[in-house]
Amino acid sequence: MLKKLNHIAIVVPDIYKAKKIYETKFNANVSELKNFKEHGVTVVFVELKNTKIELMQPYGKNSPIQKFLDKNPDGGMHHICIEVEDIKKIHKSLKEKNVRILGSDKPSIGSHNKPILFLHPKDFCGTLIELEEE
Amino acid sequence: MLKKLNHIAIVVPDIYKAKKIYETKFNANVSELKNFKEHGVTVVFVELKNTKIELMQPYGKNSPIQKFLDKNPDGGMHHICIEVEDIKKIHKSLKEKNVRILGSDKPSIGSHNKPILFLHPKDFCGTLIELEEE
Repeated sequence: MLKKLNHIAIVVPDIYKAKKIYETKFNANVSELKNFKEHGVTVVFVELKNTKIELMQPYGKNSPIQKFLDKNPDGGMHHICIEVEDIKKIHKSLKEKNVRILGSDKPSIGSHNKPILFLHPKDFCGTLIELEEE
Repeated sequence: MLKKLNHIAIVVPDIYKAKKIYETKFNANVSELKNFKEHGVTVVFVELKNTKIELMQPYGKNSPIQKFLDKNPDGGMHHICIEVEDIKKIHKSLKEKNVRILGSDKPSIGSHNKPILFLHPKDFCGTLIELEEE
């Protein structure tokens, strides 16, 4: 059911600084900044050999990650995103197993333009898990 | 400099329950429990196609992850582990760049029997990063 880890998402207070840290301390390849107005985030990706780290900063006034940053002003790990084959199938299966889905309780379209689900962290030992159709 | 993501480490209050959650909700392959007395943790690995999730529970009285669990009783994401080619070389390079190394300030041997370093989360936007020689 679980395929590849698509990314680890880390909320940061200053995305320019964060990009610079990964570039200068690790000589890492970091993508250019991208704003996702409809998702309320500005992101860059740090390239690893088998996956990527997504650094995210709130964008706009109603960013869904603003609360997290208020609680964790230095930033911190926010969620992990795991790929799945068929999001509708896994949605049905998880609902049958009483897993709580965040938001509209239905798959939505994420910032990579693919169907996604966010699962309630209380159902997964305090970890926010995003599932994305591969 | 940064190679593969070796694992994401998640602290959990009950490793039997956590193993069961990943097995039943996701039909995931989860390894058997392993105690690391000298590291103060009991772990299982959840298999993904390109990396793994390490679920960890404190083991013994002086577990280094007990404080984290006290602060996060439901559990939560604890650190990420990234592979590097040469730990001594990267240690020298990071020291020159004023990155703070946790513990003895020198590479030590981790639970995979490989040289590791833990970097100060304050130097990486609130994220605890473990580097492990590949």
